[in-house]
Amino acid sequence: MNIGRVVGTVVSTQKDDKLVGTKLQIVKQLGLDCAETGSFVVAIDAVGAGQGEVVLYASGSSARQTPITKDRPADAVIMAIVDSIEVDGATTYEKN
Amino acid sequence: MNIGRVVGTVVSTQKDDKLVGTKLQIVKQLGLDCAETGSFVVAIDAVGAGQGEVVLYASGSSARQTPITKDRPADAVIMAIVDSIEVDGATTYEKN
Amino acid sequence: MNIGRVVGTVVSTQKDDKLVGTKLQIVKQLGLDCAETGSFVVAIDAVGAGQGEVVLYASGSSARQTPITKDRPADAVIMAIVDSIEVDGATTYEKN
Amino acid sequence: MNIGRVVGTVVSTQKDDKLVGTKLQIVKQLGLDCAETGSFVVAIDAVGAGQGEVVLYASGSSARQTPITKDRPADAVIMAIVDSIEVDGATTYEKN
Amino acid sequence: MNIGRVVGTVVSTQKDDKLVGTKLQIVKQLGLDCAETGSFVVAIDAVGAGQGEVVLYASGSSARQTPITKDRPADAVIMAIVDSIEVDGATTYEKN
Repeated sequence: MNIGRVVGTVVSTQKDDKLVGTKLQIVKQLGLDCAETGSFVVAIDAVGAGQGEVVLYASGSSARQTPITKDRPADAVIMAIVDSIEVDGATTYEKN
Repeated sequence: MNIGRVVGTVVSTQKDDKLVGTKLQIVKQLGLDCAETGSFVVAIDAVGAGQGEVVLYASGSSARQTPITKDRPADAVIMAIVDSIEVDGATTYEKN
Repeated sequence: MNIGRVVGTVVSTQKDDKLVGTKLQIVKQLGLDCAETGSFVVAIDAVGAGQGEVVLYASGSSARQTPITKDRPADAVIMAIVDSIEVDGATTYEKN
Repeated sequence: MNIGRVVGTVVSTQKDDKLVGTKLQIVKQLGLDCAETGSFVVAIDAVGAGQGEVVLYASGSSARQTPITKDRPADAVIMAIVDSIEVDGATTYEKN
Repeated sequence: MNIGRVVGTVVSTQKDDKLVGTKLQIVKQLGLDCAETGSFVVAIDAVGAGQGEVVLYASGSSARQTPITKDRPADAVIMAIVDSIEVDGATTYEKN
């Protein structure tokens, strides 16, 4: 999985039927210092993440293993909201 | 998923039988500012996207989860036409 | 899918049983201008592509969706021979 | 698979139900000289790796082939703790 | 598939049960000139490749399509030992 921050949304009315009702979030990838790496993905949100939240997202077929993404043409899913990140014994991120 | 723009097509008569009847679109990848990144993919169109349209495409096995791509040897699918993109509260793209 | 050109072959006698009888083609990746990108893959040929031909190849599990590659340990397949490529209304490649 | 070192953990309470009870480890990728490459992944730990340990991790659908990750939305798994690495006849890493 | 050379092994006693009995080979990726690209993977050996041999390896779910890797948490497999490589009509590699 990768760490990312939800920064926005994509709206689409004309899409594959299986995507109706899903929320398409834009997630910028973060490094361990929570700085942006310059990459982003559009991911289906399976956990109700809000704008600005730090999340984990999974890619590929693993993105279809949630009830919300099962059998859907989606290659990225937000599957966790991050509470805290600890690296080498130090807390590098903590949700307010 | 990634954001892209449909810029052209690939025509092939000699191809795997399961690809007969599919439309092979060339999609240039876009950044969040809708500028081209320099990458492109050839994707099967599952939503009837037109030349120049901004779309979402999925890659890998997820590309086979639409009725049009199921069980076909295709690793990229256009599964949504983008209406609008919102980043950090600002609309960065809106379809005319 | 990516666009490529068949430039050669790999011969192997000691290989997984499921690969017996397959043709292993070396495919150099091409850009939209049909210039080489510097990357290549070894792909199983599902369409009888000849040396020098411009082809489409699919990667990952999608590479196993042809009769020739089904259930085989192959992560790339040539699934179409390209007749023509059109970008922004101009034909950038046409097979002789 | 890739070689990595466990450097920390991600804690998440709000996550997909199938992830409850899994341990989310941060794994920095290592080169053959055991130097960090600059990349990292968040992986589910299937073997009880400790902080600082050198491990192997698998990505993609292969990450779901352990009892701990089966059917879960996880695209990376720690599936082995490394005892030793031998390159060109020399031992480049040995666990204490 | 990619071309690589077997340069070493990884030994692990504490690993997922399904990996018991598999041989974990370190494979350096090669270009068409058989020069190292700087990348490597740890792959399960399905064909009995020896130290120094030039091989083909497959990645992702395709790596699980051999009898030795089926259902195992492995994302790379050596599935062929290369006898010869021919590029643009010239033999660029031939096994002794």
